[in-house]
Order: sequence, then structure tokens, then C-alpha cells
Amino acid sequence: MMTRADFEKLDAQDPLAGLRQQFILEDGLIYLDGNSLGVLPRATAPRVAQVVQQEWGQGLIRSWNSAGWISLSQRVGNKIAQLIGARSGEVVAVDSTSINLFKVLAAALGIAQARDPARTVVLSEAGNFPTDLYVAQGLSALTQQRCVLKQVESGEILGALSQDTAVLMLTHVNYKTGAMWDMSAITAAAQARGVLVIWDLAHSAGAVEVDLHQANADFAVGCGYKYLNGGPGAPAFVWMHPRHAAHARQPLSGWLGHVSPFAFSPDYSPAHGITQFVCGTPPVISLAALECGVDTVLAAGSVGGMRAVRAKSTALTRAFIACITPFCERLGLTLISPRQDDARGSQVCYAHANAYAVMQALIERRVIGDFRAPDVLRFGFTPLYTRFADVFDAAQGLQEVLATKVYAQERFTRRQAVT
Amino acid sequence: MMTRADFEKLDAQDPLAGLRQQFILEDGLIYLDGNSLGVLPRATAPRVAQVVQQEWGQGLIRSWNSAGWISLSQRVGNKIAQLIGARSGEVVAVDSTSINLFKVLAAALGIAQARDPARTVVLSEAGNFPTDLYVAQGLSALTQQRCVLKQVESGEILGALSQDTAVLMLTHVNYKTGAMWDMSAITAAAQARGVLVIWDLAHSAGAVEVDLHQANADFAVGCGYKYLNGGPGAPAFVWMHPRHAAHARQPLSGWLGHVSPFAFSPDYSPAHGITQFVCGTPPVISLAALECGVDTVLAAGSVGGMRAVRAKSTALTRAFIACITPFCERLGLTLISPRQDDARGSQVCYAHANAYAVMQALIERRVIGDFRAPDVLRFGFTPLYTRFADVFDAAQGLQEVLATKVYAQERFTRRQAVT
Repeated sequence: MMTRADFEKLDAQDPLAGLRQQFILEDGLIYLDGNSLGVLPRATAPRVAQVVQQEWGQGLIRSWNSAGWISLSQRVGNKIAQLIGARSGEVVAVDSTSINLFKVLAAALGIAQARDPARTVVLSEAGNFPTDLYVAQGLSALTQQRCVLKQVESGEILGALSQDTAVLMLTHVNYKTGAMWDMSAITAAAQARGVLVIWDLAHSAGAVEVDLHQANADFAVGCGYKYLNGGPGAPAFVWMHPRHAAHARQPLSGWLGHVSPFAFSPDYSPAHGITQFVCGTPPVISLAALECGVDTVLAAGSVGGMRAVRAKSTALTRAFIACITPFCERLGLTLISPRQDDARGSQVCYAHANAYAVMQALIERRVIGDFRAPDVLRFGFTPLYTRFADVFDAAQGLQEVLATKVYAQERFTRRQAVT
Repeated sequence: MMTRADFEKLDAQDPLAGLRQQFILEDGLIYLDGNSLGVLPRATAPRVAQVVQQEWGQGLIRSWNSAGWISLSQRVGNKIAQLIGARSGEVVAVDSTSINLFKVLAAALGIAQARDPARTVVLSEAGNFPTDLYVAQGLSALTQQRCVLKQVESGEILGALSQDTAVLMLTHVNYKTGAMWDMSAITAAAQARGVLVIWDLAHSAGAVEVDLHQANADFAVGCGYKYLNGGPGAPAFVWMHPRHAAHARQPLSGWLGHVSPFAFSPDYSPAHGITQFVCGTPPVISLAALECGVDTVLAAGSVGGMRAVRAKSTALTRAFIACITPFCERLGLTLISPRQDDARGSQVCYAHANAYAVMQALIERRVIGDFRAPDVLRFGFTPLYTRFADVFDAAQGLQEVLATKVYAQERFTRRQAVT
């Protein structure tokens, strides 16, 4: 049995330990919810104040040029590209994940149906994050079923790829279970059947290794406020493989996606490459905060980059499972994340009959994880600021909450709007 | 001929003069570009710092409940509603104007075609802001011409309404000329021909009186970063008349527009009313800044509200025209904004053969207006912080720039990316 001292030793040996200094973290708080909202980087508040007070307040409209606002989506996109195996000029940071998914789904559908109009199915996983499914349903209704969403269980995805399938749309790491797809293998299998592949990297970017070019993916979107630490509701990002640049056409055609926005031409002509995926004017303040968040992940470049981040992530989640296993069954927990390291993202989830109340009780003990309906306890391990000692303490806390049944108290069982 | 002293007297008598104290304005700078980017309110930097440092930094994920982030789009929307003749619960602040326009255009088209599938035309003004036209073109392409954009000159709009017209989509105040539609009359004329009407309030909200219910409009969208002073790229807003709530369906169906987002149901079921127009997670920091901006306009409530704001706006633009008129023709200026007060928004525009260079020279003299291709000088007058003395000084500055031909110097004629 490992002791807390063993975990402290792991922290002492951790080459990424210094990255924690980039964040403002409350003493004694164990935050295992960076997969829902990443913590505040030290650089963000001063940078946001600068954007508000100097760039906006003093620069005013001139800052579109002088402060580079006009290409901020591209600048932040280029930084994100480095974390996901994309190249400079291939990513923009803009809008929300949902909106970006609508863009790439419509673009991919257009490409697929230009090749073969009989391909109408958008295939996805039944347990995908709901917004991904909703966006496909919205596109289906708008196009009068020119595409139809088909949801199958994860084990049936490969078998469900058929002559009817236009697009396979998957989230790389499942939001609820932490299960991670083999991006290269799935992409290759789908493409072998003539299917385009869209990856949602919401729970991947900044946490696990992603190499979009190596995997030969077609499109990708992702989230700025989880492992990228961009702040609440931070803009999302979107990537397209350059082989599609000449043909792809996304329908949310706004003025900043125009090839020449300041010509104010009455007819839309898309910008080259990924810039056509910019639509309206992006929220500059939130985008500046996102850049600070992305910088915290890029800082890992000096200590091994995303490979080292992933290695630590795997070690953290493996250690957490190891800590829980001795009391898991006895205290009513069921592991729903994959035990196999390379099939698991940066989170560990357990089912428990009283999951909501258990999480509330744990939060009161200053271990913050997430509840996901109906019965899931979700623990996210952000390698940049989570320590091995935190893993030990969180497991201890969970054990005590469960063993003492403190969670049965009314103040924990009473539901709030959001958790 | 009026002197500067006369203008100073107007400022002394101005019941709205005190509202200027709400903003951080550089001494000696005359900012006539609030219709492109409103100036920084004093309240914004502290509020943004609070959101970043306390709500995000300390509250972390808990702030979705404890800081009310989850209903921030609605809270800010309810404040905007008060400025545009909408009711509480009818407006949300979310996404960009372009994206919101796509939502309402698709929703309106769905309603129109459910009544009569032969109505396929989206009618708009040829000189409308390009993004509005592009969005309609994007929807047209995506739906395989289930709708088609028809652009006609403003004088031909009423005559162009026909049995084929599904939706009339107009910007209330033209971005380039400042010409303002009679919202009630146009809406009534279109509806009499069975046409739904969408108003883009980008250059109206916070500057001119708008009463969406009195005008009986169908849908509206608008911008947060112009007269609402919400900051660069601030989220936009969207309104729907409640008579459409039961039937409207917008296609950008994201999880926060779901009737029960935290049920994580695999099938989309829209939230009631305007909340279905929320899509993904909104950018909280930028949304908080927008709220501060909206508050600066609401503050006019104590000194006469939007009626008083509009009265001052009209007086400012009329005074500017009066100052320019004596040298207008002689120095090559042509007024392209309506002379008639009630047909003009809160801006005054002149054509000039060297408009770009003239504006650069004027900016160097610390009078900031806007250039719009190919030959337009655009001056926006934000009634909340523009003084009558500023009008005088700006006109004087323009006269000197033109009379001395200083604008012909190379440093003014060299183009930048954005102006």
C-alpha cells in the first residue's frame, strides 16, 4: 500500500511540477474539474486588464490594427495548432464548439455529397456529448433530412460505417466515461469506406497527445475553457485538413470569413483556408484570455511537451484508480473509465447510486470534481497543475465521504441548477 | 454663424451631459467612432477583474451557479430588452450578430414556408451591411436554394415585396449612410403582403428609439460593441416576437438552448422562448463586459431614457451637418446621410474623393471617425459621451484638413489593413 509520502516523492521527481506555478490555486483546494473549467493562469488577469484598459480604453478602434485584434483568431489558432498536430495557418480560435461543429459538419457533408449524393448519414456515438448530437440534428432539420444523424453504441461504430455514411463525427475522449478512441485507426477505417471524419477534441486538446496530420483526420473542433485554461465560455477552435481547403464551404458566412472583409462586397467570397471559418467579430477580451491559457500548455514545451503532459496524465489517472480500487466495490463504486491506459483520457469516472450527493459532500471537503447525470462521479486530472499528492488526498476524501455516509445529509442531496 | 461658445452653452444645458462621466475618455480626443466600437465604461475594468479573479479564479466551476453565469445571457438580454421595446424574457445576449442572424433567418424561413412553401425570397437592401447579405447567401447555399437572397435598392424595397417573398431582412440604420428605415411602416407594409420581417439593430440599439412590439416586428438581432459599449467583439443579441415562440425552430441547436441542458439527453428539445437561441457556452468575460456597457445606456433612464438619448443624437448630427454645410461643396464633400432628422440614425457621412487619406489626417489631429470604402467619411455621434463642443471641434478639424490639403501627404495615403 502506497502512502502519502510515496505520492509526495512522485511530485518531487515530476519534471512538469514547475508548471503549476503558472496558475493561481487556492491552498488546500483539490481541483479535479479542469476538464469542465480550467483554473486561472497567473498571466490572465494582467493581460485582460491590459486589453480592457490600454487596447480598448486607449487604443479604441485603432487597436484592430495596432494591437493585432484583426488577426487574433489566427494568432491564437496558430498556438493551438502546436498542441494538436496541426500546422500554422490551419486553426482559428472562434465562436463556440457547437457553432464550429455546425460549420465543419456542413462543410464535410457538402464534400461527401458532391462525391456521392447517396451518402446521407452522419454517424456518431450514442454517448457523445449532447451538443454534438444536437448540432447534427439541427443541420438535419434545416436541410430537410439531406443528412440524418445515426447514433450507435461505441462498440458498433466500425460495423455501422456503410455506403450511406457521409461523415463520422466522434468526440476523441468521451465526456462521461473518459474513454478515448484510437484516432488514427478509426480515421483510417472510416476513410477506407469513403467516410469523412470529424473529431471533437473538447476533452483532448491540452491533455492528451493529438496529431491530426498523422491521423489524417478531415476536420476537428475543440474547446478553449477545459484543458486549455481559457476561462469560462472561452472561444473554441476549428481545424480543417488543407486538402479540403479548395472545396470546403461552411454556411455561417460572415464578414470576417470573407476573402476581403473591408471591401464590403455584396457577395460572399470565402477567405482562403481556415479563415473562412471565422464568421462575425470575435469576442476579443475572451480571446485574449484564451491566449494566456494556451500559453500555459505551450510552456510544457520546455519539459517534454505534450508527450510529457500525456505521460503525467496517464500516471495521475492510473494512480487514482489504484488508490480507489481497494475500497471500490465495498463502498458502491463502479469504475466506468477504461482501465487500459491508452484507452483512457485524462479523467476517471465512477458510477455510484448516490453520485450527486457524494460529489456535493466531496466538494464541501474541498475536493472539486463533477457530477454527470444520472450517477457519474467525474474526476479530471489536469497534468499542468494537479499533483500526485492531490490524487492521494482526493482518493482519501472520497473514501471517507463514502465510508461515513456523510453524503446522506439533506444539504448534500438537495439539487442545484448546475453542478 | 455659431461659435464654439454657442456649442459650449448647449453642453451646459444638456440634461444628458452627466452620463459622460460613466466613461474613460482621453482628454482632447474626439471619438466619433462609437458606432464601430463604443468607448470603455469606467465600471468595466473593475467588473472584468472581478469576474476573472474572484468568479473564475476563486469560484471556479461553482460560479456557474454562485455567480449566475448560467443565466448571464438572459440577464444581459433582459437589460437590452428595455432599450429596444422588448419585454423581459424575450432577448438573449449571445454569439455574434452574424450567427444570430443565421438563426433568425432560418427560423423565419421555416415559419414562412410552413405557411406557403412557394415563398423562397429573402429580400434585402443592396447596401445592407455585407455580413447580413453573406449570412443569407450561406443559408441559401446550405438549403440548396430553398431560399434565395434578392438585393434591391432601398427605394425599391416596398415594390419588390411579392408572393414569393418569405422574409424581409433590413438593417434599421444603414452602416454606410446612416439612413434609417421607418420600422413600423415598413414592417406593416411587409406583413400586409404576408412577409415576415427581421430587423438588424446593429446601429440602432442604444442610439435611437426602437420599439419592437409597437412596430410588431417578427425577429431582431443587434450588436453589443457599438452604441451598447460592450467592448471589442462583445456578444450580440437576438429577439423573437413571442407569437413565434411555439413554432420557431433555429438550427444552431446547442446544449444551452436545450429545454433541460443538464439532463444530457441525446435528442434535442428546444428550450421555451428565446432561450433556444442560446447555442454553446457563451464567453462569460466578454458577456460581463457587455453588461457594464448596457448599464451605461440604462443609466439614461433617470434623465429621459432613450427618448432623450435620441433627441440629443438628432441635435448632434444636425449640428454637425450645419457646421459642415458652409464649406461642404467648396472642399469636395457630399453629404450622403439623410438631411431629414427622422430618416437619419446617429451618424453623418460624407463622400470625398480622398476619403481614406482625409480620415487618416483627421485621426492624427485626434478626431477619430471611420473610413468606409470606397469614398466614405463616417462620423458616429454617441449621445452618451459626445459633447456639442466636440461637434464643433470635429467640423473645424475636418475643414482644416481639407483646406490645407494636408491629407495628400504620403503618410496619410498609405493604406493599413483596417481603419
